[in-house]
Amino acid sequence: MTQLEDRQATADASMPEKAVGIDTVWLGDYLLGQWADARRHARDLVARPEFQPIDGLSLAEQRERTFGQLKLLVDAGAVHRAFPKALGGDDDHGGNIASFEEIVLADPSLQIKSGVQWGLFGAAVLHLGTERHHSRLLPAILNLETPGAFAMTETGHGSDVAAIGTTATYDTETEEFVIHTPFRAAWKDYLGNAALHGRAAVVFAQLVTRGVNHGVHAFYVPIRDDEGFLPGIGGEDDGLKGGLNGIDNGRLHFDHVRVPRENLLNRYGDVAPDGSYGSPIASPGRRFFTMIGTLVQGRVSLDGASVVASKLALYIAITYGSQRRQFTAARPTEEEVILDYQRHQRRLLPRLATTYAMSFAHEKLLTAFDGVFSGTRATDADREDLETLAAALKPLSTWGALDILQEAREACGGAGFLAENRLTQLRADLDIYVTFEGDNNVLLQLVAKRLLIDYSRKFAKADAGALAGYVAGQVGSAAVHRFGLRQFAQNVADFGSTARSVGNVRDAASQRQLLTDRVRTMVASLAGRLRNADKLSATDAADLFNANQNELIETARAHAELLQWEAFTEALAGVDDAETMRVLTWLRDLFGLSLIEKNLAWYLINGRLSAQRAIAITGYIDDRLLPRLRPHALELVNAFGFVPGQVRATIATGVEKERQDAAADFYRALRASGDAPVEEKSLKPAR
Amino acid sequence: MTQLEDRQATADASMPEKAVGIDTVWLGDYLLGQWADARRHARDLVARPEFQPIDGLSLAEQRERTFGQLKLLVDAGAVHRAFPKALGGDDDHGGNIASFEEIVLADPSLQIKSGVQWGLFGAAVLHLGTERHHSRLLPAILNLETPGAFAMTETGHGSDVAAIGTTATYDTETEEFVIHTPFRAAWKDYLGNAALHGRAAVVFAQLVTRGVNHGVHAFYVPIRDDEGFLPGIGGEDDGLKGGLNGIDNGRLHFDHVRVPRENLLNRYGDVAPDGSYGSPIASPGRRFFTMIGTLVQGRVSLDGASVVASKLALYIAITYGSQRRQFTAARPTEEEVILDYQRHQRRLLPRLATTYAMSFAHEKLLTAFDGVFSGTRATDADREDLETLAAALKPLSTWGALDILQEAREACGGAGFLAENRLTQLRADLDIYVTFEGDNNVLLQLVAKRLLIDYSRKFAKADAGALAGYVAGQVGSAAVHRFGLRQFAQNVADFGSTARSVGNVRDAASQRQLLTDRVRTMVASLAGRLRNADKLSATDAADLFNANQNELIETARAHAELLQWEAFTEALAGVDDAETMRVLTWLRDLFGLSLIEKNLAWYLINGRLSAQRAIAITGYIDDRLLPRLRPHALELVNAFGFVPGQVRATIATGVEKERQDAAADFYRALRASGDAPVEEKSLKPAR
Repeated sequence: MTQLEDRQATADASMPEKAVGIDTVWLGDYLLGQWADARRHARDLVARPEFQPIDGLSLAEQRERTFGQLKLLVDAGAVHRAFPKALGGDDDHGGNIASFEEIVLADPSLQIKSGVQWGLFGAAVLHLGTERHHSRLLPAILNLETPGAFAMTETGHGSDVAAIGTTATYDTETEEFVIHTPFRAAWKDYLGNAALHGRAAVVFAQLVTRGVNHGVHAFYVPIRDDEGFLPGIGGEDDGLKGGLNGIDNGRLHFDHVRVPRENLLNRYGDVAPDGSYGSPIASPGRRFFTMIGTLVQGRVSLDGASVVASKLALYIAITYGSQRRQFTAARPTEEEVILDYQRHQRRLLPRLATTYAMSFAHEKLLTAFDGVFSGTRATDADREDLETLAAALKPLSTWGALDILQEAREACGGAGFLAENRLTQLRADLDIYVTFEGDNNVLLQLVAKRLLIDYSRKFAKADAGALAGYVAGQVGSAAVHRFGLRQFAQNVADFGSTARSVGNVRDAASQRQLLTDRVRTMVASLAGRLRNADKLSATDAADLFNANQNELIETARAHAELLQWEAFTEALAGVDDAETMRVLTWLRDLFGLSLIEKNLAWYLINGRLSAQRAIAITGYIDDRLLPRLRPHALELVNAFGFVPGQVRATIATGVEKERQDAAADFYRALRASGDAPVEEKSLKPAR
Repeated sequence: MTQLEDRQATADASMPEKAVGIDTVWLGDYLLGQWADARRHARDLVARPEFQPIDGLSLAEQRERTFGQLKLLVDAGAVHRAFPKALGGDDDHGGNIASFEEIVLADPSLQIKSGVQWGLFGAAVLHLGTERHHSRLLPAILNLETPGAFAMTETGHGSDVAAIGTTATYDTETEEFVIHTPFRAAWKDYLGNAALHGRAAVVFAQLVTRGVNHGVHAFYVPIRDDEGFLPGIGGEDDGLKGGLNGIDNGRLHFDHVRVPRENLLNRYGDVAPDGSYGSPIASPGRRFFTMIGTLVQGRVSLDGASVVASKLALYIAITYGSQRRQFTAARPTEEEVILDYQRHQRRLLPRLATTYAMSFAHEKLLTAFDGVFSGTRATDADREDLETLAAALKPLSTWGALDILQEAREACGGAGFLAENRLTQLRADLDIYVTFEGDNNVLLQLVAKRLLIDYSRKFAKADAGALAGYVAGQVGSAAVHRFGLRQFAQNVADFGSTARSVGNVRDAASQRQLLTDRVRTMVASLAGRLRNADKLSATDAADLFNANQNELIETARAHAELLQWEAFTEALAGVDDAETMRVLTWLRDLFGLSLIEKNLAWYLINGRLSAQRAIAITGYIDDRLLPRLRPHALELVNAFGFVPGQVRATIATGVEKERQDAAADFYRALRASGDAPVEEKSLKPAR
């Protein structure tokens, strides 16, 4: 570490772009957000070597190391935040998630393994259980005496929790539930802590009593003691994975395993000794979604961890890109570094803008989460909004992180492939984030359905005029491509010069209008196509939905992108320093215009942009925004506030600059000595 | 394996889509192409467990295993094909590469490690050396007595080989070359066989004699004996990497290491005992590119290996998608599998089309390669065409393989993340393919420059009219967005109905016209913007180029996509069976229209497509092509001809179908028994 720190100091001191203008210290605090203290505390921990992974360990060694690190987290007092004060916690839900997210900087395996123990297993006992479970079970969960698994997912049903096959049948005679796995597809699968360390599990099963299936409920089930699995319990190891190999994922199955009636986590549904069922939520559907809804923190924290990993990736790639020279080294007088290349800027700067947008959007999500879980903003509508927001943002940020990590890796060339530079391992670990805690494609469909419900509520009694008003922006309507050609031509004629035509989309209001209009039009168009679904047979309705499934998902994505853009724009309002404001506004513009550029065909087809303006957007990005942002790229990643113990990537120290300088010095001295060989090509003309 | 094979047999027998129509046996042979025998021989080898990796080995164990497998390849007679008959080879260049590509099915580490030994180290001695090197060095290289490194890349200059810092200075006194590394950035880096197994290296260095630097040449340098590094040689281990950990990559540096004059690989440049330099190629620039050009086989084989890996990924994901049910299991009467979902088709079927296009394009590349290296088609123009074709296709296929492997992994959900299902490890290994043997972004710039040169040659003396004729298609001209509005409107008016408007782009001639027109227009537009570059100062010219760098790369990509499309279309001409022809034509259409859809904004901006037609393209993909191709998806991956020993992915056996069937059987029996619990929601209306 000392050597790395020395290099870091060298690198910082020698950076030409340092402190050109923006207030990186203030911006760093601003980015850390409302729960900055929790984040700083976690970052201090992850900078300690004992929380970091060691390259090249065997699978068994990785698992042991990560498990040992969980104990260190307990010792460091880093796991109690979200739990009740009575149990030594802080009832600090936002701070807990914020802290947990930063642990990705140490090792995603540690993040997810601690997430399994306290964010899923422990949180299920907390949120689905009642006082009798809290006092009896939580202390041993908190101090890791009882490592546990969260046994929801089954081999046969990944994201389709309602369809799980495991049953918990109440036996009135003995006042016990009988937990049973009726077939292979109903084995619980991919469970952290199941292969090795778990002593208990929260098992999700169909609750059956008095011949009625009341749907999915959660049960606390001991699974292992010092001798291994308890009677009736079996399992398998999931073995080596594409990443997260510090976690012992495995499978569990149950052969008529009996647990006391009281082991039902009974906050949202209970069975009396006589077998009668009761629930504070009458609708089985709403009850299911309420129970599942308590698990939203998994999605929230994956969103946040993806932001942190993206920041690290760009810190590494942009630091390296600011030092590395290539295809100029034969001309040592050139001072150009690879980040001066347009393509390199095109690869990294829009992703930097996306990372800022993801970061500000996550802060809003975390605030909503904290409101619901602290009870300060916890109406049913607040809960629904939180779930929809999480379902919208988690897909974009988890996919975004993979894209950013990969581009950063490629932008670092062969050096990016070395484990010592961390990018490949982070990418491998975060890979699964896109399909766990709700597959991204499934989540986006949930968002789209919510958008359609909101739309239909709004227009349940509206006439055609109101609908048209909703979809038609000032620029044109959805029908313009068919009927509005005169207006389209007019738009084109209006803007003769590039400068003028960009002027009309680069301000925030225009960006908002374009982004909002697209979401609204897509929702309205979908609603129109699906409007007769309730008059169809179930099969035909499913077919109709399926024929629009891709569009549903793209609509949800457009909505989530707008949310990110709004969060970035809202964050700008909190900036005081003029230069910081100027640079962040360019960055927000780069984010907004990149979104519009990505969906340019839609804007053209729907008459929202003329060809002239469409071209001008790309020109504005290439000719204005990238060159303006380039000198601030290093400041913008320095604002992420990482110290060497968190970065731990050799190429993001000053080592590359040292090498470049040494090469330049060598050639300079050689030229001065008069011993430099003459180039053959300078002797005779090339044929 | 036996268990896997049993399952495979079960899976095949139970597939409902099997043999619906296309001739998979014939198609399988057709896809294997001209060097089918070599591919089959290699596939037989890779199905043998001793050529396969073992999960969870330590880094040291992985390296030893892969090295041992190289010896097994020698024993199996699998490495001599490309070498001269006098040395026991076959002079079979195409067959050699074809065979080498298939080894990716065993383990990419084995593919690349054997590529280092025989495709780079050995091939450099063969192609850059002369008879004196061949007889003296090649036998021990072929039989692996001399494992070797290919020491071209330096830490300071990845893809910029001309700028390497290592020098080889001729000493007339002793008639030796002095190999020297003058500074840290000139260390050779990322070299397979350098960390552990290499006994010698082909070292690329600036050849200096009589005070003149004649540019980069290759030297044969012994580096290690039983005791370790030879005097003057040092190095480091690159350590753990993001993938390919069966290969011992490392660094080498040289402190005035002396080798005999004869160790210069002197085919393209030689130094006489008195220190005078001579070369059959007078121009230093052309000489450099000729030498580097012999290394094109690395790019060719990465292109082919990416095709093979993509085929495997889609075989796994489409087989699984044809068995897996989700969100329907609660209704066990439903027979829908996840591949019936539109989104799942959208994710996998266009990538299947791309894989076919990549496969046919690779066959053309390999044919060109064989022509040049066998000498049957080996003019300077043939060599240039080969290099440009390789530089165009390798980026698309290596990026394509990562994209396809990742989508396949996500399409398999959590199961896709398990090492036993292979997708994550293949992706991790192939990651580096996009930046080694020429960084993809660098290669595409080379292609674009070649396109610009061809363009300027063609129009060196042409008048404005000829230029306009080149860029203007029948549909419109590049200027249409500004001046051609009447014509644009006309196009829109022409096509009133969706069916009619698609009819005009879905035939092959229209696809070709749209794809070709885009490339031509982009080239012409670039040429126009860069036309004054030669009148500018070097700095200003570099700035002008840099301001168009992104567009250069996108132009090269458009060109490469057109090449893939043409190869697919040309391949259709060889199909006799009507049903196979019908299905493959849909698949080619899906490829072509997906390309057009991806670049829809360009076609709209440039007046090549009206909004109506643009919309119709997406509609045609969703409503026609995907539903038509869906029933043939399994046939199309079965045609890849993999056997279980090559696939080795649990989820691509019948195991998922077995589980689904068992679950369905259980529920069926439960319903029949009358013991099934009643659903709560059926008892009372939900609120």
